Amino acid sequence: MLKIVKIGGNVVDHPEKLDAFLRDFHALDGNKVLVHGGGKIATSVCSALGITSRMIDGRRVTDEETLKVAVMVYAGLVNKTIVTKLQALGTNAFGLCGADGNLIPAVKRNAVPVDFGFVGDPVVDKFGTDVITMLITGGYVPVIAPISHTGSGILLNTNADTTAQTVAVGMSRAFETELIYCFEQKGVLMDINDEHSVIPTITPEYFRQLKNEGKVTGGMIPKLENALKAIENGVKRVVICGSDAFGKEGHKGTVISGESA
Amino acid sequence: MLKIVKIGGNVVDHPEKLDAFLRDFHALDGNKVLVHGGGKIATSVCSALGITSRMIDGRRVTDEETLKVAVMVYAGLVNKTIVTKLQALGTNAFGLCGADGNLIPAVKRNAVPVDFGFVGDPVVDKFGTDVITMLITGGYVPVIAPISHTGSGILLNTNADTTAQTVAVGMSRAFETELIYCFEQKGVLMDINDEHSVIPTITPEYFRQLKNEGKVTGGMIPKLENALKAIENGVKRVVICGSDAFGKEGHKGTVISGESA
Repeated sequence: MLKIVKIGGNVVDHPEKLDAFLRDFHALDGNKVLVHGGGKIATSVCSALGITSRMIDGRRVTDEETLKVAVMVYAGLVNKTIVTKLQALGTNAFGLCGADGNLIPAVKRNAVPVDFGFVGDPVVDKFGTDVITMLITGGYVPVIAPISHTGSGILLNTNADTTAQTVAVGMSRAFETELIYCFEQKGVLMDINDEHSVIPTITPEYFRQLKNEGKVTGGMIPKLENALKAIENGVKRVVICGSDAFGKEGHKGTVISGESA
Repeated sequence: MLKIVKIGGNVVDHPEKLDAFLRDFHALDGNKVLVHGGGKIATSVCSALGITSRMIDGRRVTDEETLKVAVMVYAGLVNKTIVTKLQALGTNAFGLCGADGNLIPAVKRNAVPVDFGFVGDPVVDKFGTDVITMLITGGYVPVIAPISHTGSGILLNTNADTTAQTVAVGMSRAFETELIYCFEQKGVLMDINDEHSVIPTITPEYFRQLKNEGKVTGGMIPKLENALKAIENGVKRVVICGSDAFGKEGHKGTVISGESA
Protein backbone atom coordinates (compact mmCIF):
# COMPACT_ATOMS: atom_id res chain seq x y z
CA MET A 1 0.00 0.00 0.00
CA LEU A 2 1.39 3.40 -1.02
CA LYS A 3 0.64 5.97 1.66
CA ILE A 4 0.09 9.60 0.65
CA VAL A 5 0.33 11.74 3.76
CA LYS A 6 -0.76 15.37 3.78
CA ILE A 7 0.27 17.90 6.41
CA GLY A 8 -0.94 21.46 6.64
CA GLY A 9 -0.05 24.77 8.15
CA ASN A 10 -0.62 23.67 11.74
CA VAL A 11 2.46 21.45 11.40
CA VAL A 12 4.52 23.44 8.90
CA ASP A 13 4.30 26.65 10.93
CA HIS A 14 5.76 25.16 14.12
CA PRO A 15 9.34 23.81 13.95
CA GLU A 16 8.92 21.54 16.99
CA LYS A 17 5.62 20.09 15.66
CA LEU A 18 7.20 19.65 12.24
CA ASP A 19 10.21 17.84 13.71
CA ALA A 20 7.95 15.52 15.75
CA PHE A 21 5.79 14.81 12.70
CA LEU A 22 8.80 14.13 10.47
CA ARG A 23 10.17 11.61 13.01
CA ASP A 24 6.81 9.77 12.84
CA PHE A 25 6.75 10.02 9.04
CA HIS A 26 10.32 8.70 8.85
CA ALA A 27 9.28 5.72 11.01
CA LEU A 28 6.32 4.88 8.77
CA ASP A 29 6.94 1.60 6.96
CA GLY A 30 6.59 1.03 3.25
CA ASN A 31 6.26 3.29 0.23
CA LYS A 32 5.16 6.80 1.06
CA VAL A 33 4.72 10.30 -0.32
CA LEU A 34 4.43 13.53 1.64
CA VAL A 35 2.29 16.44 0.43
CA HIS A 36 2.62 19.65 2.42
CA GLY A 37 0.69 22.87 2.66
CA GLY A 38 2.20 26.29 3.07
CA GLY A 39 1.05 27.59 6.39
CA LYS A 40 1.21 31.19 7.42
CA ILE A 41 4.78 31.80 6.25
CA ALA A 42 3.53 32.94 2.83
CA THR A 43 1.13 35.39 4.47
CA SER A 44 3.88 36.85 6.64
CA VAL A 45 6.30 37.09 3.68
CA CYS A 46 3.56 38.81 1.64
CA SER A 47 2.89 41.35 4.37
CA ALA A 48 6.63 41.92 4.92
CA LEU A 49 6.94 42.60 1.18
CA GLY A 50 3.99 44.98 1.33
CA ILE A 51 1.77 42.75 -0.80
CA THR A 52 -1.77 43.25 0.41
CA SER A 53 -3.78 40.10 -0.11
CA ARG A 54 -7.20 40.72 -1.55
CA MET A 55 -9.82 38.41 -0.05
CA ILE A 56 -13.12 37.34 -1.65
CA ASP A 57 -15.58 35.35 0.49
CA GLY A 58 -12.78 34.70 2.99
CA ARG A 59 -10.48 33.30 0.32
CA ARG A 60 -7.25 34.88 -0.79
CA VAL A 61 -6.86 36.09 -4.37
CA THR A 62 -3.55 34.93 -5.87
CA ASP A 63 -2.36 37.89 -7.92
CA GLU A 64 0.99 37.79 -9.74
CA GLU A 65 3.03 38.95 -6.74
CA THR A 66 1.23 36.61 -4.32
CA LEU A 67 1.89 33.72 -6.72
CA LYS A 68 5.64 34.48 -6.67
CA VAL A 69 5.60 34.37 -2.86
CA ALA A 70 3.62 31.10 -2.88
CA VAL A 71 6.18 29.54 -5.23
CA MET A 72 9.10 30.85 -3.14
CA VAL A 73 7.66 29.67 0.16
CA TYR A 74 5.91 26.40 -0.78
CA ALA A 75 8.19 25.01 -3.53
CA GLY A 76 11.30 26.66 -2.05
CA LEU A 77 11.61 27.23 1.68
CA VAL A 78 9.03 24.80 3.08
CA ASN A 79 9.72 22.02 0.58
CA LYS A 80 13.52 22.09 0.90
CA THR A 81 13.43 22.51 4.70
CA ILE A 82 11.32 19.34 4.95
CA VAL A 83 13.60 17.51 2.50
CA THR A 84 16.83 18.31 4.34
CA LYS A 85 15.24 17.46 7.72
CA LEU A 86 14.05 14.07 6.39
CA GLN A 87 17.50 13.45 4.88
CA ALA A 88 19.01 14.08 8.33
CA LEU A 89 16.69 11.39 9.75
CA GLY A 90 17.77 8.92 7.08
CA THR A 91 14.77 9.16 4.73
CA ASN A 92 15.98 9.78 1.17
CA ALA A 93 13.52 12.60 0.50
CA PHE A 94 13.15 14.23 -2.91
CA GLY A 95 11.22 17.49 -3.19
CA LEU A 96 9.22 18.55 -6.21
CA CYS A 97 6.26 20.64 -7.27
CA GLY A 98 3.64 20.10 -9.94
CA ALA A 99 5.77 21.68 -12.68
CA ASP A 100 8.66 19.24 -12.19
CA GLY A 101 8.47 16.47 -14.73
CA ASN A 102 5.01 17.86 -15.59
CA LEU A 103 3.74 16.14 -12.45
CA ILE A 104 0.52 18.14 -11.96
CA PRO A 105 -0.90 19.76 -15.10
CA ALA A 106 -3.73 22.06 -14.12
CA VAL A 107 -6.16 24.58 -15.51
CA LYS A 108 -6.28 28.14 -14.25
CA ARG A 109 -9.62 28.51 -12.53
CA ASN A 110 -12.24 30.35 -14.54
CA ALA A 111 -12.39 34.05 -13.71
CA VAL A 112 -16.21 33.86 -13.78
CA PRO A 113 -18.05 34.11 -11.44
CA VAL A 114 -15.12 34.96 -9.12
CA ASP A 115 -11.55 35.66 -10.21
CA PHE A 116 -9.23 34.08 -7.66
CA GLY A 117 -6.21 34.78 -9.89
CA PHE A 118 -3.39 32.27 -10.40
CA VAL A 119 -5.17 29.31 -8.84
CA GLY A 120 -4.96 25.89 -10.45
CA ASP A 121 -7.39 23.00 -10.57
CA PRO A 122 -5.36 19.83 -11.28
CA VAL A 123 -6.24 17.72 -14.32
CA VAL A 124 -5.99 14.32 -12.67
CA ASP A 125 -6.13 12.45 -16.02
CA LYS A 126 -2.81 14.09 -16.92
CA PHE A 127 -1.17 13.45 -13.53
CA GLY A 128 2.44 12.23 -13.85
CA THR A 129 2.11 8.77 -12.30
CA ASP A 130 5.41 7.80 -13.96
CA VAL A 131 7.32 10.59 -12.18
CA ILE A 132 6.39 9.39 -8.70
CA THR A 133 6.75 5.73 -9.67
CA MET A 134 10.28 6.45 -10.88
CA LEU A 135 11.20 8.17 -7.60
CA ILE A 136 9.68 5.44 -5.43
CA THR A 137 11.28 2.69 -7.51
CA GLY A 138 14.59 4.54 -7.17
CA GLY A 139 14.28 4.45 -3.39
CA TYR A 140 13.32 8.09 -2.89
CA VAL A 141 10.45 9.52 -0.84
CA PRO A 142 8.69 12.25 -2.84
CA VAL A 143 7.84 15.47 -0.98
CA ILE A 144 5.33 17.49 -2.99
CA ALA A 145 4.60 21.23 -2.78
CA PRO A 146 1.09 22.45 -3.67
CA ILE A 147 2.06 24.30 -6.85
CA SER A 148 0.78 23.11 -10.25
CA HIS A 149 1.23 24.55 -13.73
CA THR A 150 -0.64 25.13 -16.96
CA GLY A 151 1.88 23.46 -19.27
CA SER A 152 2.08 26.78 -21.11
CA GLY A 153 4.63 28.33 -18.77
CA ILE A 154 2.48 29.52 -15.89
CA LEU A 155 2.74 28.26 -12.32
CA LEU A 156 -0.46 28.02 -10.29
CA ASN A 157 -1.20 28.08 -6.59
CA THR A 158 -3.14 24.94 -5.67
CA ASN A 159 -5.04 23.83 -2.60
CA ALA A 160 -2.88 21.35 -0.68
CA ASP A 161 -5.78 18.99 0.16
CA THR A 162 -6.70 18.89 -3.53
CA THR A 163 -3.05 18.31 -4.44
CA ALA A 164 -2.89 15.35 -2.05
CA GLN A 165 -6.14 13.93 -3.45
CA THR A 166 -4.79 14.32 -7.01
CA VAL A 167 -1.57 12.53 -6.07
CA ALA A 168 -3.49 9.70 -4.39
CA VAL A 169 -5.91 9.24 -7.29
CA GLY A 170 -3.13 9.52 -9.87
CA MET A 171 -0.96 7.00 -8.03
CA SER A 172 -3.85 4.54 -7.63
CA ARG A 173 -3.25 3.65 -11.31
CA ALA A 174 0.05 2.05 -10.29
CA PHE A 175 -0.33 1.21 -6.57
CA GLU A 176 -2.97 0.46 -3.98
CA THR A 177 -3.12 3.81 -2.24
CA GLU A 178 -4.08 5.17 1.14
CA LEU A 179 -4.58 8.91 1.64
CA ILE A 180 -3.95 10.28 5.13
CA TYR A 181 -4.98 13.85 5.91
CA CYS A 182 -3.21 15.04 9.07
CA PHE A 183 -4.65 18.13 10.64
CA GLU A 184 -5.13 19.91 13.96
CA GLN A 185 -7.93 17.70 15.33
CA LYS A 186 -8.02 13.98 16.09
CA GLY A 187 -10.49 13.42 13.26
CA VAL A 188 -13.84 14.76 12.07
CA LEU A 189 -15.64 15.77 15.26
CA MET A 190 -19.37 15.40 15.87
CA ASP A 191 -19.07 18.22 18.40
CA ILE A 192 -16.37 20.75 17.55
CA ASN A 193 -15.87 21.46 21.28
CA ASP A 194 -15.36 17.81 22.23
CA GLU A 195 -12.13 16.28 20.97
CA HIS A 196 -13.40 12.84 22.03
CA SER A 197 -16.35 13.04 19.60
CA VAL A 198 -14.39 11.73 16.60
CA ILE A 199 -16.70 10.19 14.00
CA PRO A 200 -15.18 6.76 13.20
CA THR A 201 -16.53 6.36 9.65
CA ILE A 202 -18.09 8.67 7.09
CA THR A 203 -19.81 7.41 3.92
CA PRO A 204 -21.09 9.64 1.09
CA GLU A 205 -24.65 9.40 2.43
CA TYR A 206 -23.57 10.15 5.97
CA PHE A 207 -21.56 13.16 4.72
CA ARG A 208 -24.67 14.58 3.06
CA GLN A 209 -26.63 14.06 6.26
CA LEU A 210 -23.94 15.70 8.44
CA LYS A 211 -23.75 18.62 6.02
CA ASN A 212 -27.52 19.09 5.96
CA GLU A 213 -27.63 18.99 9.75
CA GLY A 214 -24.86 21.61 9.91
CA LYS A 215 -22.57 19.17 11.78
CA VAL A 216 -19.72 19.69 9.31
CA THR A 217 -19.01 23.25 8.28
CA GLY A 218 -16.31 25.56 6.96
CA GLY A 219 -13.02 24.07 5.84
CA MET A 220 -14.12 20.54 6.75
CA ILE A 221 -16.58 20.46 3.82
CA PRO A 222 -13.98 20.75 1.01
CA LYS A 223 -11.65 18.39 2.95
CA LEU A 224 -14.37 15.73 3.08
CA GLU A 225 -15.31 16.37 -0.54
CA ASN A 226 -11.66 15.77 -1.47
CA ALA A 227 -11.65 12.59 0.62
CA LEU A 228 -14.83 11.25 -0.98
CA LYS A 229 -13.60 12.14 -4.47
CA ALA A 230 -10.43 10.14 -3.74
CA ILE A 231 -12.48 7.09 -2.70
CA GLU A 232 -14.70 7.40 -5.77
CA ASN A 233 -11.63 7.48 -8.01
CA GLY A 234 -9.64 4.45 -6.95
CA VAL A 235 -8.05 5.31 -3.59
CA LYS A 236 -8.53 2.35 -1.22
CA ARG A 237 -8.68 4.18 2.07
CA VAL A 238 -8.80 7.77 3.31
CA VAL A 239 -8.16 8.75 6.93
CA ILE A 240 -8.53 12.18 8.50
CA CYS A 241 -6.51 12.27 11.73
CA GLY A 242 -4.44 14.41 14.05
CA SER A 243 -0.86 15.12 13.08
CA ASP A 244 0.27 14.44 16.66
CA ALA A 245 -1.51 11.07 16.74
CA PHE A 246 0.03 10.15 13.41
CA GLY A 247 2.17 7.06 13.61
CA LYS A 248 1.90 6.54 17.38
CA GLU A 249 -1.75 5.52 17.28
CA GLY A 250 -1.65 3.99 13.82
CA HIS A 251 -3.22 7.19 12.48
CA LYS A 252 -6.61 6.45 13.93
CA GLY A 253 -9.16 9.09 13.16
CA THR A 254 -12.10 9.31 10.81
CA VAL A 255 -12.09 6.76 8.01
CA ILE A 256 -13.80 7.82 4.80
CA SER A 257 -15.51 4.90 3.19
CA GLY A 258 -17.19 4.51 -0.18
CA GLU A 259 -19.32 1.68 1.11
CA SER A 260 -22.56 2.13 2.98
CA ALA A 261 -22.29 1.54 6.69
CA MET B 1 28.32 13.60 -24.35
CA LEU B 2 26.31 14.92 -21.39
CA LYS B 3 26.26 18.72 -21.45
CA ILE B 4 26.11 20.63 -18.17
CA VAL B 5 25.14 24.23 -18.94
CA LYS B 6 25.40 26.97 -16.34
CA ILE B 7 23.61 30.31 -16.57
CA GLY B 8 24.02 33.18 -14.15
CA GLY B 9 22.29 36.32 -13.03
CA ASN B 10 22.78 38.17 -16.31
CA VAL B 11 20.28 35.74 -17.88
CA VAL B 12 18.07 34.93 -14.89
CA ASP B 13 17.43 38.61 -14.10
CA HIS B 14 16.02 39.47 -17.53
CA PRO B 15 12.87 37.65 -18.66
CA GLU B 16 13.48 38.29 -22.37
CA LYS B 17 17.11 37.06 -22.14
CA LEU B 18 15.98 34.05 -20.13
CA ASP B 19 13.31 33.17 -22.71
CA ALA B 20 15.84 33.47 -25.56
CA PHE B 21 18.37 31.34 -23.70
CA LEU B 22 15.78 28.68 -22.84
CA ARG B 23 14.77 28.40 -26.51
CA ASP B 24 18.44 27.75 -27.38
CA PHE B 25 18.79 25.30 -24.48
CA HIS B 26 15.62 23.49 -25.56
CA ALA B 27 17.07 23.17 -29.10
CA LEU B 28 20.34 21.68 -27.79
CA ASP B 29 20.61 18.02 -28.84
CA GLY B 30 21.42 15.13 -26.53
CA ASN B 31 21.50 14.67 -22.78
CA LYS B 32 21.74 17.90 -20.84
CA VAL B 33 21.53 19.45 -17.40
CA LEU B 34 20.94 23.10 -16.54
CA VAL B 35 22.51 24.72 -13.47
CA HIS B 36 21.31 28.24 -12.71
CA GLY B 37 22.47 31.07 -10.48
CA GLY B 38 20.23 33.36 -8.55
CA GLY B 39 20.76 36.82 -9.91
CA LYS B 40 19.74 39.97 -8.17
CA ILE B 41 16.24 38.80 -7.22
CA ALA B 42 17.51 37.48 -3.87
CA THR B 43 19.17 40.82 -3.13
CA SER B 44 15.98 42.73 -3.92
CA VAL B 45 13.84 40.33 -1.85
CA CYS B 46 16.31 40.71 1.04
CA SER B 47 16.17 44.47 0.91
CA ALA B 48 12.36 44.43 0.58
CA LEU B 49 12.26 42.25 3.70
CA GLY B 50 14.60 44.64 5.49
CA ILE B 51 17.43 42.10 5.68
CA THR B 52 20.65 44.03 5.45
CA SER B 53 23.34 41.95 3.83
CA ARG B 54 26.66 42.13 5.58
CA MET B 55 29.57 42.11 3.15
CA ILE B 56 33.15 40.99 3.84
CA ASP B 57 35.77 41.63 1.13
CA GLY B 58 32.98 42.31 -1.36
CA ARG B 59 31.28 38.99 -0.60
CA ARG B 60 27.90 38.62 1.00
CA VAL B 61 27.58 36.90 4.38
CA THR B 62 24.75 34.35 4.36
CA ASP B 63 23.14 34.72 7.78
CA GLU B 64 20.06 32.67 8.72
CA GLU B 65 17.56 35.09 7.19
CA THR B 66 19.59 35.55 4.01
CA LEU B 67 19.78 31.76 3.65
CA LYS B 68 15.97 31.51 3.81
CA VAL B 69 15.69 34.07 1.01
CA ALA B 70 18.33 32.24 -1.06
CA VAL B 71 16.38 28.98 -0.69
CA MET B 72 13.08 30.70 -1.54
CA VAL B 73 14.45 32.49 -4.59
CA TYR B 74 16.93 29.97 -6.02
CA ALA B 75 15.27 26.61 -5.22
CA GLY B 76 11.76 28.10 -5.42
CA LEU B 77 10.99 31.01 -7.72
CA VAL B 78 13.91 30.86 -10.17
CA ASN B 79 14.05 27.05 -10.37
CA LYS B 80 10.32 26.51 -10.90
CA THR B 81 9.98 29.45 -13.31
CA ILE B 82 12.70 27.90 -15.49
CA VAL B 83 11.09 24.45 -15.21
CA THR B 84 7.61 25.58 -16.25
CA LYS B 85 9.04 27.67 -19.13
CA LEU B 86 11.05 24.68 -20.42
CA GLN B 87 7.96 22.46 -20.07
CA ALA B 88 6.05 24.95 -22.24
CA LEU B 89 8.75 24.59 -24.92
CA GLY B 90 8.47 20.79 -24.81
CA THR B 91 11.54 19.98 -22.69
CA ASN B 92 10.56 17.70 -19.82
CA ALA B 93 12.41 19.71 -17.17
CA PHE B 94 12.72 18.54 -13.56
CA GLY B 95 13.91 21.01 -10.94
CA LEU B 96 15.89 20.09 -7.87
CA CYS B 97 18.42 21.43 -5.40
CA GLY B 98 21.32 19.77 -3.62
CA ALA B 99 19.14 18.49 -0.77
CA ASP B 100 16.81 16.53 -3.06
CA GLY B 101 17.83 12.89 -3.14
CA ASN B 102 20.97 14.00 -1.25
CA LEU B 103 22.29 15.29 -4.58
CA ILE B 104 24.94 17.69 -3.26
CA PRO B 105 26.26 16.93 0.23
CA ALA B 106 28.43 19.81 1.37
CA VAL B 107 30.37 21.11 4.33
CA LYS B 108 29.62 24.45 5.90
CA ARG B 109 32.60 26.62 5.23
CA ASN B 110 34.94 27.07 8.17
CA ALA B 111 34.22 30.22 10.17
CA VAL B 112 37.96 30.87 10.43
CA PRO B 113 39.50 33.08 9.10
CA VAL B 114 36.27 34.63 7.73
CA ASP B 115 32.75 33.58 8.69
CA PHE B 116 30.61 33.75 5.55
CA GLY B 117 27.72 32.05 7.37
CA PHE B 118 25.56 29.35 5.76
CA VAL B 119 27.79 28.77 2.75
CA GLY B 120 28.49 25.27 1.51
CA ASP B 121 31.47 23.71 -0.20
CA PRO B 122 30.25 20.59 -2.06
CA VAL B 123 31.83 17.23 -1.26
CA VAL B 124 32.17 15.97 -4.82
CA ASP B 125 33.00 12.41 -3.71
CA LYS B 126 29.51 12.18 -2.23
CA PHE B 127 27.73 13.75 -5.23
CA GLY B 128 24.53 11.91 -6.18
CA THR B 129 25.46 10.67 -9.64
CA ASP B 130 22.61 8.13 -9.43
CA VAL B 131 20.00 10.87 -8.93
CA ILE B 132 20.84 12.67 -12.18
CA THR B 133 21.38 9.39 -14.05
CA MET B 134 17.88 8.28 -12.99
CA LEU B 135 16.33 11.54 -14.22
CA ILE B 136 18.20 11.50 -17.54
CA THR B 137 17.42 7.82 -18.10
CA GLY B 138 13.78 8.61 -17.36
CA GLY B 139 13.76 11.24 -20.10
CA TYR B 140 13.88 14.29 -17.84
CA VAL B 141 16.16 17.31 -18.07
CA PRO B 142 17.48 18.20 -14.59
CA VAL B 143 17.44 21.89 -13.63
CA ILE B 144 19.63 22.43 -10.57
CA ALA B 145 19.50 25.30 -8.06
CA PRO B 146 22.73 26.30 -6.25
CA ILE B 147 21.67 25.13 -2.79
CA SER B 148 23.47 22.24 -1.08
CA HIS B 149 23.03 20.72 2.37
CA THR B 150 25.01 19.29 5.25
CA GLY B 151 23.12 16.01 5.53
CA SER B 152 22.37 16.95 9.14
CA GLY B 153 19.36 19.10 8.31
CA ILE B 154 20.93 22.38 7.26
CA LEU B 155 20.62 23.93 3.80
CA LEU B 156 23.63 25.87 2.47
CA ASN B 157 24.00 28.63 -0.08
CA THR B 158 26.49 27.52 -2.73
CA ASN B 159 28.30 29.29 -5.53
CA ALA B 160 26.57 28.43 -8.82
CA ASP B 161 29.83 28.03 -10.80
CA THR B 162 31.07 25.61 -8.15
CA THR B 163 27.72 23.79 -8.21
CA ALA B 164 28.00 23.37 -12.00
CA GLN B 165 31.59 22.12 -11.67
CA THR B 166 30.50 19.64 -8.98
CA VAL B 167 27.68 18.35 -11.19
CA ALA B 168 30.00 17.99 -14.19
CA VAL B 169 32.72 16.19 -12.21
CA GLY B 170 30.17 14.00 -10.41
CA MET B 171 28.45 13.04 -13.66
CA SER B 172 31.76 12.28 -15.40
CA ARG B 173 31.69 8.98 -13.44
CA ALA B 174 28.73 7.86 -15.57
CA PHE B 175 28.95 9.95 -18.77
CA GLU B 176 31.46 11.78 -20.92
CA THR B 177 30.71 15.34 -19.83
CA GLU B 178 31.06 18.83 -21.24
CA LEU B 179 30.70 21.86 -18.96
CA ILE B 180 29.50 25.09 -20.56
CA TYR B 181 29.66 28.30 -18.55
CA CYS B 182 27.39 30.92 -20.15
CA PHE B 183 27.99 34.47 -19.01
CA GLU B 184 27.79 38.09 -20.13
CA GLN B 185 30.88 38.12 -22.38
CA LYS B 186 31.68 36.12 -25.49
CA GLY B 187 34.47 34.30 -23.64
CA VAL B 188 37.53 35.11 -21.57
CA LEU B 189 38.77 38.42 -22.99
CA MET B 190 42.44 39.40 -23.35
CA ASP B 191 41.30 43.04 -23.23
CA ILE B 192 38.23 43.60 -21.09
CA ASN B 193 37.25 46.56 -23.31
CA ASP B 194 37.45 44.61 -26.58
CA GLU B 195 34.75 41.98 -27.02
CA HIS B 196 36.63 40.61 -30.04
CA SER B 197 39.67 39.70 -27.92
CA VAL B 198 38.30 36.28 -26.88
CA ILE B 199 41.12 33.93 -25.86
CA PRO B 200 40.46 30.69 -27.79
CA THR B 201 42.17 28.25 -25.40
CA ILE B 202 43.43 28.38 -21.83
CA THR B 203 45.65 25.70 -20.32
CA PRO B 204 46.67 25.55 -16.63
CA GLU B 205 50.07 27.09 -17.43
CA TYR B 206 48.53 29.82 -19.56
CA PHE B 207 46.04 30.58 -16.75
CA ARG B 208 48.92 31.08 -14.29
CA GLN B 209 50.64 33.37 -16.79
CA LEU B 210 47.46 35.40 -17.44
CA LYS B 211 46.88 35.71 -13.70
CA ASN B 212 50.47 36.80 -13.01
CA GLU B 213 50.23 39.40 -15.78
CA GLY B 214 46.96 40.69 -14.31
CA LYS B 215 45.09 39.83 -17.53
CA VAL B 216 42.45 37.86 -15.66
CA THR B 217 41.08 39.43 -12.52
CA GLY B 218 38.07 39.53 -10.20
CA GLY B 219 35.29 37.01 -10.73
CA MET B 220 37.03 35.45 -13.72
CA ILE B 221 39.70 33.91 -11.47
CA PRO B 222 37.35 31.59 -9.49
CA LYS B 223 35.43 30.82 -12.70
CA LEU B 224 38.64 29.67 -14.41
CA GLU B 225 39.74 27.80 -11.29
CA ASN B 226 36.40 25.95 -11.35
CA ALA B 227 36.89 25.21 -15.05
CA LEU B 228 40.40 23.87 -14.56
CA LYS B 229 39.32 21.80 -11.55
CA ALA B 230 36.60 20.24 -13.74
CA ILE B 231 39.15 19.31 -16.41
CA GLU B 232 41.53 17.87 -13.81
CA ASN B 233 38.72 15.72 -12.43
CA GLY B 234 37.36 13.94 -15.45
CA VAL B 235 35.31 16.50 -17.40
CA LYS B 236 36.21 16.20 -21.10
CA ARG B 237 35.67 19.79 -22.18
CA VAL B 238 34.89 23.15 -20.56
CA VAL B 239 33.76 26.18 -22.54
CA ILE B 240 33.22 29.71 -21.25
CA CYS B 241 30.98 31.57 -23.68
CA GLY B 242 28.28 34.21 -24.05
CA SER B 243 24.74 33.25 -23.19
CA ASP B 244 23.46 35.02 -26.31
CA ALA B 245 25.91 33.14 -28.56
CA PHE B 246 24.89 29.85 -26.94
CA GLY B 247 23.43 27.41 -29.41
CA LYS B 248 23.47 29.71 -32.45
CA GLU B 249 27.26 29.73 -32.76
CA GLY B 250 27.80 26.28 -31.34
CA HIS B 251 28.77 27.90 -28.04
CA LYS B 252 32.11 29.11 -29.28
CA GLY B 253 34.11 30.95 -26.68
CA THR B 254 37.12 30.10 -24.59
CA VAL B 255 37.92 26.40 -24.35
CA ILE B 256 39.64 25.28 -21.16
CA SER B 257 42.09 22.54 -21.90
CA GLY B 258 44.07 20.29 -19.60
CA GLU B 259 46.67 19.71 -22.32
CA SER B 260 49.55 22.01 -23.03
CA ALA B 261 49.10 24.12 -26.15
